[in-house]
This record gives sequence, C-alpha cells and structure tokens, in this order.
Amino acid sequence: MRVAIPRRTVYRLSVYLRCLAQLAENGVRTASSQALAEAAGVKPTQLRKDLTSFGHFGTRGLGYDVVTLRDKIAEVLGRKQLQPVVLVGVGHLGSALLAYKGFEKESFEIVAGFDVDVKRKRRKTYSQPILPLDKLESFLRTRKIHMAIITVPASVAQEVANRLAAAGVNAILNFAPIVLHVPANIVVNSVNLAIELENLSYFRSLAEG
Amino acid sequence: MRVAIPRRTVYRLSVYLRCLAQLAENGVRTASSQALAEAAGVKPTQLRKDLTSFGHFGTRGLGYDVVTLRDKIAEVLGRKQLQPVVLVGVGHLGSALLAYKGFEKESFEIVAGFDVDVKRKRRKTYSQPILPLDKLESFLRTRKIHMAIITVPASVAQEVANRLAAAGVNAILNFAPIVLHVPANIVVNSVNLAIELENLSYFRSLAEG
Repeated sequence: MRVAIPRRTVYRLSVYLRCLAQLAENGVRTASSQALAEAAGVKPTQLRKDLTSFGHFGTRGLGYDVVTLRDKIAEVLGRKQLQPVVLVGVGHLGSALLAYKGFEKESFEIVAGFDVDVKRKRRKTYSQPILPLDKLESFLRTRKIHMAIITVPASVAQEVANRLAAAGVNAILNFAPIVLHVPANIVVNSVNLAIELENLSYFRSLAEG
Repeated sequence: MRVAIPRRTVYRLSVYLRCLAQLAENGVRTASSQALAEAAGVKPTQLRKDLTSFGHFGTRGLGYDVVTLRDKIAEVLGRKQLQPVVLVGVGHLGSALLAYKGFEKESFEIVAGFDVDVKRKRRKTYSQPILPLDKLESFLRTRKIHMAIITVPASVAQEVANRLAAAGVNAILNFAPIVLHVPANIVVNSVNLAIELENLSYFRSLAEG
C-alpha cells in the first residue's frame, strides 16, 4: 500500500506534472524550485514541502531535473496506464465533456455515455457510443470499469451513484449539485459550478472591502 | 472589511447553505449538528468549527434554527444581490454552461458569452447573446461586471485573463487547463477536469492497495 498524500497536495502534484511536461517539451533540462513554483502558481516553500512528501529532493544549487521529476510524479500519481471512465447523463454538460479534446493527452478515456433517452436530439461531435441506462451495470462489469462521471440532474444523482457503487465503481466525479452519500471505500470529487462562483464572489467582495 | 474565512471553509459554507435551504423548503425548523453534518457529508466537529468561524453557535440540546442559520450563511457569503458574470469562449463547454439551468436558483447570472467566432454553428439552447471578443472590454466597463468564466483553449487563456483583469474583472472561474498568472488582487478558481480525474484515480488506487 502506498503512502497517502493529502488531497490538496495531490491536486498540486497534478499541476506540477503539467508544468514539468511543458518544460520538458520546450527542451528545458533543469528548473529551480522558484521557477517551477512560479509556473505552478504556488510559493517555493509549498513546492519543496509537497515534493518531500514522497521523498524527492532537488540538488542544492542545481534545482530539479525536469524529466526525472516529471516521471517520478507521474509514477506517484499512478498514471501508467489508460483509465477507462464512463459518463452518466448526456445532457448539455455531459455532451460537452464527451466532446472535450483535453483528455487526449491525459491518461483517461471516456469510453461511453449513458442516458435514459438515447434518442434525444444531440449535436453529435463525439465518438463515444450513447447507451441506455439499463445497460450500465453489465457494461461496467464486463469492461471492469471503476471510474465514472455523473452529469445527471440533482434529483436522480444519488440513485445513479448507488447503481455505480453497486456495480464496482469506486471513484466518481460528480457534477450534480448535491452531496452524494456513498460507502466509505468510494471516492467522490464534486464540481459544483454555483459553489465555485460563490467562492469567487466571497473573496472578490472581501478584497473590495 | 470582513473577516477572511479560509477558502476550504467557504466551500463548505456553500454546501451547508444548500442543505439548509433544502431543509427549510421541506418545512424542517431545527437541525442538530449531526444531522446537518451528515447531509453535508462532513464530520460534526468540522461543521461546528466552520460555523464558529463567523461566530455562530447552535443552542445546546436544540440544534440550529434552520432559517436563521441559512440566512446568516447567505449573509456571510454575500449572496444578497444577483451577480452578473460573463463567459469567454463559447465552444462545447462554454455552450453547455450558457445553457445550464442550475444557476437560476443561485445568485449568479451569465449575462453574455464572448467568442472570436460569433457565427460558429452552435445548437442554440441558451438565451444569452454571443458577442464578438473585441466588444469584451466595453461591455465589462459599461455593465460594471467583475466576474468572468474562461472556457477558451489553453493557448489563449492567459491573454483572455489579462484582458479581463485590465477591464476590471477581479474574479475568474477558469476551465482552461493552465495556471493563470494574474495580479494579486484578482481571485482565480480553476476547474481542471483531467486533474479532478487524476485526483480520483490516485485515491481509488490507494484504496485498492
């Protein structure tokens, strides 16, 4: 069993990984903690602390070796193999995520969308099949899929989460604006757009005094 | 100037607010910290700590008055008036956000979308106008808008952020998969879908040992 790194640290490692990948693409070989921290939008002390959480230290005076650190973080994050993901709820947001090209460079692939209404008129700009919701469990079990994205309305999101959990999914990215209740062995990250805006609004009004 | 509450606490306050609003709608008058914490998916100790951050205490043995606490949190979060927001980049994700009905119950309104190509074929299911990007600054200044959502590709997101900042925007919700560099008086929250999945993936593989 690997060491559990705190959730906020894991988020930052993901950001460092992307900055390092970009530096490597640009042919940069070493980066100081200052430079890398600035690229990632964090303080150098934060960066150094995060990297020591899995025992990685730069060489004093030389900084970090870009490719070595990139590969090390990728290993820590377990990005070795392509992870299949299903998406449940092919409405506006679900369609947009299916069509999203940003996953191509990543280690995730949305392999199918599920919806109660497979014949709903959609502007088809994605390559994945849209399958009826009653095929969800058999698809997950046959394909051994453990990750799902929920983009159904709030009123049915808990029911969908229950079905996903029962069919072996143990990681859910939830866009429905409700708190999902799941067994302790299942990880849920929620993205709630209204809450993101509310958070911004609080801090901007604070800054304005 | 109000007291600065930590960012993660503000996120949780937003969740409590929604749980309380739901309880109030259902005619529930009081809620114990246990019940409210469970609805919000946090520990009761966390809830009590969060609520004391702005000086609110329940009555021992009676719990919290649902309507009073709801209104107090709404006040702390500054949800008094409707906040206008612009969206820049009307592609797949931008279109989905413009069409998103979830903001209607919230205190935010996306008033317009901006794009370099206003004539791009879109499945029009939203009521807001799509305006050319060169009208961005004049629109923001005339309407005194201070919040924006960025849904442009990563390659142009920093340039868009610079323009927004120069035109008086001080809060940005960024969906482009890059770290934006902005002046210190501007708040940025980023939603990076690949990073959310990567985070989930890390914790689910950890749980599997």
